Formats: sequence, structure tokens, C-alpha cells
Amino acid sequence: MKQEKTMKTFPDKTVLEAAFERVQRFVHWTPVLTSETFDQMCGGKLYFKCENFQKGGAFKFRGAVNSVFSLDEEESSRGVATHSSGNHAQAVALAARMRNIPATIVMPENAPQVKVNAVKGYGAKVVFCPPTLRDREETIEKVIHETGASFIHPSNDLRVIAGQSTATMELLEDVEGLDMLLAPVGGGGLLSGTSLAARTFSEGLEVVGCEPAAADDAYRSFYGGTLVLPDHPNTIADGLKTSLGSNTFPIIRKNVDTIVLVQEEEIIEAMRLVWERMKIVIEPSAAVPVAAVLNEKVQVAGKRVGIILSGGNVDLGKLPWREEG
Amino acid sequence: MKQEKTMKTFPDKTVLEAAFERVQRFVHWTPVLTSETFDQMCGGKLYFKCENFQKGGAFKFRGAVNSVFSLDEEESSRGVATHSSGNHAQAVALAARMRNIPATIVMPENAPQVKVNAVKGYGAKVVFCPPTLRDREETIEKVIHETGASFIHPSNDLRVIAGQSTATMELLEDVEGLDMLLAPVGGGGLLSGTSLAARTFSEGLEVVGCEPAAADDAYRSFYGGTLVLPDHPNTIADGLKTSLGSNTFPIIRKNVDTIVLVQEEEIIEAMRLVWERMKIVIEPSAAVPVAAVLNEKVQVAGKRVGIILSGGNVDLGKLPWREEG
Repeated sequence: MKQEKTMKTFPDKTVLEAAFERVQRFVHWTPVLTSETFDQMCGGKLYFKCENFQKGGAFKFRGAVNSVFSLDEEESSRGVATHSSGNHAQAVALAARMRNIPATIVMPENAPQVKVNAVKGYGAKVVFCPPTLRDREETIEKVIHETGASFIHPSNDLRVIAGQSTATMELLEDVEGLDMLLAPVGGGGLLSGTSLAARTFSEGLEVVGCEPAAADDAYRSFYGGTLVLPDHPNTIADGLKTSLGSNTFPIIRKNVDTIVLVQEEEIIEAMRLVWERMKIVIEPSAAVPVAAVLNEKVQVAGKRVGIILSGGNVDLGKLPWREEG
Repeated sequence: MKQEKTMKTFPDKTVLEAAFERVQRFVHWTPVLTSETFDQMCGGKLYFKCENFQKGGAFKFRGAVNSVFSLDEEESSRGVATHSSGNHAQAVALAARMRNIPATIVMPENAPQVKVNAVKGYGAKVVFCPPTLRDREETIEKVIHETGASFIHPSNDLRVIAGQSTATMELLEDVEGLDMLLAPVGGGGLLSGTSLAARTFSEGLEVVGCEPAAADDAYRSFYGGTLVLPDHPNTIADGLKTSLGSNTFPIIRKNVDTIVLVQEEEIIEAMRLVWERMKIVIEPSAAVPVAAVLNEKVQVAGKRVGIILSGGNVDLGKLPWREEG
């Protein structure tokens, strides 16, 4: 791993600034919200970067736009392809439509109809496959072979990582003097981009990855020093079930200070509290860093703390709390 | 009614500007959100004034603050009192705490415990009464007689009305060239303030009151010319069950252009759509004007339309849509 790390060229200042420039026309510069209630609860000053207000309802659109618009004319004419049943699928489909190029999304046969419809609604072609890792990889390879499309990995793609970093670049423009920055970690695209931006555009900013204990592969990889895969992750934060990759793992090892774990009930409680007090809809993955703060997995007292609220795509008919009365 | 109307002095430019000045230090200047999705659905350009982000989770705090801080020293020393089981109760309790004066809130015995706790949490005294109009009035009169407290009616109080107008004053500062402005109507405090601000600080702005068909007393009063009381209102928009009063009725008749009605299913659907697409939590009352736009009760095509999202206080354990799956 170490050798690979030194040989790779990870996004530097020039690359990040180019990504920032590139995505500007397409993404929302999302607002930063504050909450006296939460500040009183934790003793710190929290700045919530609202990527739930991003186009497509999640930060994923940033990486997709940066990737799609990084292609040269010849590459782009052959289109893009990815595999995802989540926010990345919609993000790539939407970005491709904006550039007016074909997109093929490989989705598992059991993907929720609402997500399939959303992807199709953006004009992308959906190719179904059996819901196994192997089938997914075989199917995407076949698609790429047949179409010549550029593959955009949901998290490990360096263009995606640079795109995700733009959320933090905006946050650092809007809020001065942050001491700490928290982001959820699943595949690690967001945390990689967050930590790269933090190291490049600020000084002494502590970067914390937040992960469900029920899908603690990034935690184990980070502290064990070897990339391990998730072992039957079963968390409500469904965006965080994926594993780190050959790029995200070394970037995170180098640039992130700490990874902390939170319990499922803590995620649900934090999510509900954000809805109730801040009046915004966030998805379980976005609640993971909030849960870390509220349950003192990190010490935030007296600190200025940025939190990336990664997205707000929730099935309102299936909320994780019990209906009452 | 007509005679009374001409004799009363309703808030004019000076009074509204004084209210704006007075509440500045205490209220949030709430953000205005836009949504491409909603614009595409209705063909207009919508500007959502997010009073769900206001302190206490609703516009009510504006009127409460203006009332509480309008009192002179002598009056304020005797405290304030009101009757409410909803947002106004919390708003008055919070405003009174900010001025450090006593507040007494008369609440029905069957008020939800969570609301009682919230009011008590702000340090207000709660006096319970049987849940009838008559008991409520008798109890509040007794409280006022015993304490000498100033009564702050939830909607008919002119200081409350002037306070509510500050939401529109902010909106008109933030968004130029609005053609139409929509607000829900229950007791009429918000719609009175909205329409007064619209008439005073803009020209040719069409003001539309939006009401549940299941609680159409304002509609019937407005078009019938006589103040009628609600007839067993049974709407999910529980903030809109109250009736117009001696001040709100003439103000609305004079300054509002139209009142439109929406059905219960339309309210629920609009509420869910705002949560889903805009990622913000709004209460059913706030969804009423959104429902009016989406169901073409008003013609918004090509127009710049302001919508006051009145609040976001919802019991997340009792959502109005069916749980699926």
C-alpha cells in the first residue's frame, strides 16, 4: 500500500481549484446553517454545510459533474457509465444530461422503483444485474466494453474525489477559523475530498471521519493499516455500506486525523433531532457526524466545528422511528 | 363592522417600521429558498420565505416579540398572558423570557405534553382549563384580573399583527419585483401583517390568503362581508382552525385580493412534496399556500410569487401519510 501511495498523484491545489472552477456553473453553493439548540447541547459552535440542498439531494452531484465535465470531446461522445443504486446513480445521470451525453447506470434488480424511475427520468439507460458484487462488476465491464463509455466509480475515482472537495472549499470560504471538520465515511469519496480540501486550504483543521459501528470497515482499515472490506454491513445509513478503495484509503490515511464510530440508535436519534429542531430533512448517513458530536465521540466544547450534511434523500413512507399514538 | 373599521387605527408605515426595528435584535432574518422542481411544476418563479427556520419554529415569534417589547416598564413588570396550545404559546413564553418578565399561558387540559413542556421549559407558568372556548376566556380573564398581566391575543392584537408583517418586510428586501404573495389564514394575524406590509412597501402586489376548505370561515367572511365563525373545523392544518377577529377581518377585507380554498389531500401532498424535494420540514398550515399553487387555485404562470412558509412544528411520530412497506 505504501508504495502505491507514493506513486499515485492525488489531487493537489491546482486540481482542486480546477474542480471548483469547473463545477461552479452547475452545483448549488449550498447554505451553511447554525443552530443555537445544538450549540447549547454540545458546547461547541456548529456549522452545518447543507448538501441535502444540493441538486439531486446530495453531495454526490459535485463529483459526478466534475467527472463528466472533465472528459474531452472524444471521450464524452462515448458517454459515461457507473454502478450505483443510490445517490451517485442519479447524480451521474443528471450530470450527463447537462452535458448532453449518454449515461448507462448498472443497478441491481432489486433497486427501489423510485430510484430507477429517477435515473430514467434524467434520460439515462438502466441496465439491471443480479444483486451481487460479482454480477455488478461483470455487467459494468460489459457495458464499458460495448459502449466505450468512461467509468465513473462512485467514490474511488480521483475526479469524483476532487469534485466532492468543493463542498469543503465552499464551507471554508463561508466560515472562518474552523477547528474541526466532520464528514461521514462509506466509500470514502466525500471524506477524501473533505480532507484534501482541509489540508490544502486551511491550517490546523482537525478532520474527523464518522462511521456507523455496524459498518466499521473504514475504522478498521484506518487503524489497522490494511484495507479491509465490510463484513455484512447492516446499517440504516445505507450510503455508508461501501468500502474504501485504492485511492480513498491512502488519501484518508494521510489526511484524516481520526475516525469515530456511532451506534444505530444514535444515528436515528440525531437524524430525528435535526429534523425536529433545524427543520431540515437529512438522510441517515448525514446524521452520522451529528451523532458523533451529540454522543461525545469527539470533543467539540469551545470549538468551531464544520459538519458536512451529506444528503437528504429519504423515503418519507419508511421513517426509522416508530409511529406513535 | 364598517363603522368600526373606519374608526380603528390600523398599523401604518411608521408602526410597521417601528416593529421591524424592534424585532431585529431578536428574530432570525429567515432565508428565502427557491426550487427548480416547483418552478417547473407551476410555471412561475416561487420564493419561499422560511419561517419554519424562525425561533420557536414559526412566524409567531415575531408577533410575540413585538408585543412583549412594546410594553412600557410598568406594564412589563406585571407580565404577559395569553391562551394558546400552539406556536403562539411557545412564542410568548420565549419572548417573555428574553425580556425577563413573567408569562402565564392558559392551555387546554388536553394539550399535548410536549407543548406544555416546551412552554414550561421557557419558564412560563401554565394554567390549565377545560377545552372549551368559554372556559378558556373565563380562565384568561381571571389570570389577567389577578396578575394585571397584558393580554397578547394570538392573532387579533395589533402589536402581534405588526410583528407578523416583518416577515414580509424581510421578503420584500430580499426579493425584488414580486407579483403575488401567498400566506395561510387562520386567525388572520399573519395574513393581516402580510397584506399590510405588501400594501405599504410595494405596489401592485397581489395578496392571496389560503385556507383549508375544511375550515373556510375566513373565505366565507371575506366574500360574505360578515364575520362568521368556524363551524367544527376539522383540518390537518391545526394552526388554521381559529377565526378572524375584530381587527384581522377588516384589515384582510381591505388589503387582501383573494382568498382561495384547498382540500385536505392537497395539503398533505404539498407538505410531503416540500419535504421530499426541498428537504425542509414544514407543518400542514405552511403547506396550504403551496397546495394552492400546485393545484392551480391561483394562476402563477410567468409570475414571481412569494410564499410564506409559516412554520415547521410537526410531531414526527404522527405524520399524515401512511407508512409503507
